Amino acid sequence: MPELRKDPILGRWIIISKERSRRPTDFVVETSQSKGGFCPLCPGNENTTPHEVLVYGRHSNAPSNAPGWVLRVVPNKFPALVIEGDLDKEGSGLYDRMNGIGAHEVIVETPNHDESFTSLPPDRMAMVFRAYRDRLTDLGRDPRFQYVMVFKNSGRAAGASLEHSHSQLVALPILPRMIVSELDGSLSYFKYKERCIYCDIIRQEIKEDSRVVCQNDEFITIVPFAPRSPLEMWILPKRHCSSYLAMAEPSYDALARIFSESMRRLDACIPNVPYNFVLHGAPLRSQPIEHFHWHFEIRPKLTTIAGFEWGSGFYINPLPPEEAATYLREAQLS
Amino acid sequence: MPELRKDPILGRWIIISKERSRRPTDFVVETSQSKGGFCPLCPGNENTTPHEVLVYGRHSNAPSNAPGWVLRVVPNKFPALVIEGDLDKEGSGLYDRMNGIGAHEVIVETPNHDESFTSLPPDRMAMVFRAYRDRLTDLGRDPRFQYVMVFKNSGRAAGASLEHSHSQLVALPILPRMIVSELDGSLSYFKYKERCIYCDIIRQEIKEDSRVVCQNDEFITIVPFAPRSPLEMWILPKRHCSSYLAMAEPSYDALARIFSESMRRLDACIPNVPYNFVLHGAPLRSQPIEHFHWHFEIRPKLTTIAGFEWGSGFYINPLPPEEAATYLREAQLS
Repeated sequence: MPELRKDPILGRWIIISKERSRRPTDFVVETSQSKGGFCPLCPGNENTTPHEVLVYGRHSNAPSNAPGWVLRVVPNKFPALVIEGDLDKEGSGLYDRMNGIGAHEVIVETPNHDESFTSLPPDRMAMVFRAYRDRLTDLGRDPRFQYVMVFKNSGRAAGASLEHSHSQLVALPILPRMIVSELDGSLSYFKYKERCIYCDIIRQEIKEDSRVVCQNDEFITIVPFAPRSPLEMWILPKRHCSSYLAMAEPSYDALARIFSESMRRLDACIPNVPYNFVLHGAPLRSQPIEHFHWHFEIRPKLTTIAGFEWGSGFYINPLPPEEAATYLREAQLS
Repeated sequence: MPELRKDPILGRWIIISKERSRRPTDFVVETSQSKGGFCPLCPGNENTTPHEVLVYGRHSNAPSNAPGWVLRVVPNKFPALVIEGDLDKEGSGLYDRMNGIGAHEVIVETPNHDESFTSLPPDRMAMVFRAYRDRLTDLGRDPRFQYVMVFKNSGRAAGASLEHSHSQLVALPILPRMIVSELDGSLSYFKYKERCIYCDIIRQEIKEDSRVVCQNDEFITIVPFAPRSPLEMWILPKRHCSSYLAMAEPSYDALARIFSESMRRLDACIPNVPYNFVLHGAPLRSQPIEHFHWHFEIRPKLTTIAGFEWGSGFYINPLPPEEAATYLREAQLS
């Protein structure tokens, strides 16, 4: 059983996932799949993954766990957390731990092994965002879970262990520190100004126009004022909304259009750059929150900026965000 | 002039350092020095670095910036922050920025290009820790600086751009978020318990004895209860002390002995593993702080755990700290 442990000073929770017992030297072995090897996410290999929990595009009369799908969600075969059991929270002296109860799923974004997320047509990308919604809705019914972290690792340097385009979600019995910090920080601002800080950021960015990458009626992509890495981008809904699940049905298409354009602009600047993106949304089952605003954060993983920032949380970014936004805006899209 | 910018939601400061103007594609180029190439940190090449600010071991009659030294501190030739100028703090709408005033120095730990930090005899390692003290003392006299971050990147994967063994320091006009979070977290505990949380951790670790790597009269090395990565270690003074500079002169030798042993144990588990370490100490010129306790955090950089943690701050660690401590304790030291 994996375990959740809390750092007593920082309140940061980490997962100890020792399902596969390994010796220290095992950790330096690269786990990436070699090109041309067996791919468990390809059509025809459905029986090598756990049973699918969501599928789009397959005929309703067809058998499950068979080809014919356009998008498929399966539990992770090597989950960081397990779905069955009780939390069994307990203290030991000044330490807190609980059982590693949760869900860890893989969203297979395409049946085509060589199709990247960035190259998906917007209507197919919208299916990915609707799959996030459907899984968030389903997992939100489990009272043990407080948060679902939705993220994508693309490229080996960004932590992807499989080539076939996929994103992941982890349902958690605790709120991750990232979200706690954003809720706290935005609440402080709200108490002072009685306005959502993200709404104010959007207003100021549109007015200044120096860090805007692109926008449509419903969404805006900016390079944030204090980015941790070159070409970092945030995608936000223009209208205040704290929960991803509160999005209206047609808005998934608008989200896909701006996400697709943003990713193609990034790809035009640095082709095939490894990247991570993370959905930042309200806790599960929360009422609308006046001070919080859901959004995506996209961070290219560039080798030259790794290092001490990783250890200290203090970032040095060699590319001013205004220049980054100019590169992204002026990129030639094919 | 580099610039410091504050994330308005999280209060996280980042450095925008655009001294070397680059296009986006430049960021994917590895900057590491090739084996056998020119090394600016080797004896004989003193004139290729900025003028030294501290030197140990060279005869006092000898000219400066010449060979004969055992340890040497020089300003970084490509500094993230610059020493000359005013802070010029200013707001722009809801954003805060200031000039990137600070110091960025390189501690050259050995004259021998092929000698690693881990292989330094304890008396030579003690010189490195005394050099940190001397530079912290000197930079603490500049009222513009609030904190000096002392850290080491070892190995290309951990961000080192030069092979020759060195650590770095960055003097900052603000408190980094890492330290603010530790000061806040430890203060919350102190308000409730009226005890230092780090002192309580040391007591509990000695009593439980499952995560202790090694100890001597003055220091203890533990694998923390909630480590972010396999084989992470913390080195703490056993007696309460908030400032690194408050350490008594002979304690530098005891620190070097335990640091040397800890690093040799790590090296015995994973030879030549890339790693980062960071000194966590009190802000400059602060009075003794009852709730904070200076320490070092050492984190091996293991490729399989990079990825989404980097983007989200949520860590998955496949090696339970009790097993990590066992590996480190039982490692055969040569």
